[in-house]
Amino acid sequence: MSASESTVFPRTPRTRVRRRGGRANYERDVVHAILDEALVAHVGFVADGQPYVIPMLHARAGGELVLHGSPLSRMLGTLRDGVPVCVTVTLLDGVVLARSAFHHSLNYRSVVVLGTARAITDDARKREALDALVEHVARGRTRDARGPSAAELDATEVLAIPLAEASAKIRTGPPQDAAEDRDLPVWAGELPLHLTPLAPRPACDLPLPDYLEEYSRVPAE
Amino acid sequence: MSASESTVFPRTPRTRVRRRGGRANYERDVVHAILDEALVAHVGFVADGQPYVIPMLHARAGGELVLHGSPLSRMLGTLRDGVPVCVTVTLLDGVVLARSAFHHSLNYRSVVVLGTARAITDDARKREALDALVEHVARGRTRDARGPSAAELDATEVLAIPLAEASAKIRTGPPQDAAEDRDLPVWAGELPLHLTPLAPRPACDLPLPDYLEEYSRVPAE
Repeated sequence: MSASESTVFPRTPRTRVRRRGGRANYERDVVHAILDEALVAHVGFVADGQPYVIPMLHARAGGELVLHGSPLSRMLGTLRDGVPVCVTVTLLDGVVLARSAFHHSLNYRSVVVLGTARAITDDARKREALDALVEHVARGRTRDARGPSAAELDATEVLAIPLAEASAKIRTGPPQDAAEDRDLPVWAGELPLHLTPLAPRPACDLPLPDYLEEYSRVPAE
Repeated sequence: MSASESTVFPRTPRTRVRRRGGRANYERDVVHAILDEALVAHVGFVADGQPYVIPMLHARAGGELVLHGSPLSRMLGTLRDGVPVCVTVTLLDGVVLARSAFHHSLNYRSVVVLGTARAITDDARKREALDALVEHVARGRTRDARGPSAAELDATEVLAIPLAEASAKIRTGPPQDAAEDRDLPVWAGELPLHLTPLAPRPACDLPLPDYLEEYSRVPAE
């Protein structure tokens, strides 16, 4: 098994979780599942010494993260130049109410990916990446939607970041009050939160596709 | 009216939305409402030339954003030194399915705040900021939860970032297919998504507080 196929990510000085290390997870499967469930990534890069964090749709295409946008985008232009990037995704699972203000928390699953982006320029690989992005939004959608034309392909910049340096951080479970607070007459517990589909708003008269009737952000097994 | 009380944020070269400028919004009320509804901020900073993006709980305390954490945190230590920071929050409102793959999109409301953090060291102001963080999680909660002890206050670093340079970007509405695609036999429309509370998981036998029965991430008017 090569390093790139390892089932765990290496704990590098940059990705090792330092605070609350018990919440850290370096399993490749765990990192992949969080990336697959999250619809939005927060992409961080530096321009003129200033950090910028921009929300973007991402998708995982095998061992790579892919992003896309306009070739005119300042962000994509900066990233295409091979600068260091940080891509973070966070799934919010609930609020955690402790008896003490100090022990209030959130339940969450997050992933931090560090690396360098490169442009995908080969048309066939670009189409694969764009398919991965559409499938990430709604699994099955590429069977229906009209695929990119040559002009649309030219008008789309696609970047890939190898999943080589990444870690997850996860909090689950109830509040952790100090022993001396546990008899305080204050409600304590978790309020789970979940990103839930509401009624679709059709822009056509066609029947709703199956993949929207069953829509879930939890990736299928 | 002073500049800090203006109802709009200035369009600076760093916060002016360049791509899809029609989605930009610089209204202070709009920016505040998005910050107040989002539970998680993605905080970007640079260390040794590498951008890092870390999810954190934030709150708005008047015209400032506040963050908190352990004084031992690498991130807070870096930010306390007065380095440039970018705080981005994103509310995902739905997926937008167009007839063409190219016009797929997400509906969202995001805010980007640029600035410099400074540590809040005055104990009274620190308590106000920590109250704002607890109220941000659940409005009304500070009436019930035990407030921070002197030791807990010492064990908490609180940072503030003035809301001086910020912009929002918002997409709403149906897909925007090209005219020649509008008769394709492909379902098109929006699937709204909403962060929904599920059944609470109590860690005690007390009755559920009102503010959890009515829990909503949409800020009260």
